[in-house]
Amino acid sequence: MKIDVLTLFPQMLDGFLSESMIGRGLKHGILDVAVHNLRDWSKGKHNQVDDRPFGGGAGMVLMPEPLFDAIEELQTPQTHRIYLAPDGDPLTPDLARDLAKKERLLLVSGHYEGIDDRVRENLIDQEVSIGDYVLTNGTLAAAVLIDCLSRFLPGFLGEEKSLTNESFQDNLLDFPQFTRPAVFRNMPIPEVLLSGNHAEIEKWRQREREERTRKRRPDLLEDSP
Amino acid sequence: MKIDVLTLFPQMLDGFLSESMIGRGLKHGILDVAVHNLRDWSKGKHNQVDDRPFGGGAGMVLMPEPLFDAIEELQTPQTHRIYLAPDGDPLTPDLARDLAKKERLLLVSGHYEGIDDRVRENLIDQEVSIGDYVLTNGTLAAAVLIDCLSRFLPGFLGEEKSLTNESFQDNLLDFPQFTRPAVFRNMPIPEVLLSGNHAEIEKWRQREREERTRKRRPDLLEDSP
Repeated sequence: MKIDVLTLFPQMLDGFLSESMIGRGLKHGILDVAVHNLRDWSKGKHNQVDDRPFGGGAGMVLMPEPLFDAIEELQTPQTHRIYLAPDGDPLTPDLARDLAKKERLLLVSGHYEGIDDRVRENLIDQEVSIGDYVLTNGTLAAAVLIDCLSRFLPGFLGEEKSLTNESFQDNLLDFPQFTRPAVFRNMPIPEVLLSGNHAEIEKWRQREREERTRKRRPDLLEDSP
Repeated sequence: MKIDVLTLFPQMLDGFLSESMIGRGLKHGILDVAVHNLRDWSKGKHNQVDDRPFGGGAGMVLMPEPLFDAIEELQTPQTHRIYLAPDGDPLTPDLARDLAKKERLLLVSGHYEGIDDRVRENLIDQEVSIGDYVLTNGTLAAAVLIDCLSRFLPGFLGEEKSLTNESFQDNLLDFPQFTRPAVFRNMPIPEVLLSGNHAEIEKWRQREREERTRKRRPDLLEDSP
């Protein structure tokens, strides 16, 4: 999968793209990410890309022209164009799985007060929000989206890790995990995990998932179909 | 405000901490972020920090000992200790505003299948989730939390930007923004924004906020107190 990112802060993604599993995925050719600086499409001697909002108000808004020029140059007929914004579709594992099937994505990240709405109306296929809060710009949101969908790319997680048993599967949170030592500073792990009885372990884990979800996120259970 | 981040991938944050408004906030001393590599607290010749989960299952779990040692060394009496996890408290502007008032935060980011639950039970004051999805590790989530709460630090946004009128205020999404030119490729901006009539502009913006929210996120309106 090929992902283009259009941002005013391309270096924000340097560490993210070289480290951890994303770095490994890039190295192994499982995904290919190109980061583009919106300022490369600015015009005039001041390299201006933003201006004050019509109608008044604080902050700066990204101008339509550099965005139109950049998106029109970067897009291909296969490109699914996404704008990261707090008023977009909430990111979920299902949405990430769907996006991981696309051939090519273009992630547009805004800044300050946002971008000129004519860009959103005319050049964006989908708006995505990573959560109900506001960030200083959309570049981190683009990184979160890339990380989240990468996990669904064939070959990305490798054999040591599966997608089974994790939070939000069946609308439940995950069960508690324990590793060695079995007793640490006088704190033992739950006995059942040492029993070797896999049916009992599964029952315990399912019970923990349900209990945690009821206690921490009862809203997830209401959303169940 | 001082923030310590404990992670297996410290370099993931390099770009984030040097660029954009976070970089500026660090330079101006408005916040101070120190990133620590969990592996510095590993023991033994293999620098092991994770092991297989008790009870079976795919993936690796962060061991209790390096995390206990690291957190106990990094914490101060003022430190509010946060673990980033999908089953934590959902991040909201209100939560970010509260956290911005703390003197000192320690953000613990897990990896793989998570961390040994004895750490969560004994050393963590609060668990925070940036959204209902799973990431390859918690470092990006720590970055999102830092970005989100920084906006509430005195002096961070500067005079050119206020916190008024943005998504999730009064449970509404933001209104559409427009900047120059007023007509771009035959697309004019809404006439009212050129009227100079501030009362009319405010009315139009409020209507747009309500309409957008009804259309895109009716769930926000249901949550209203």
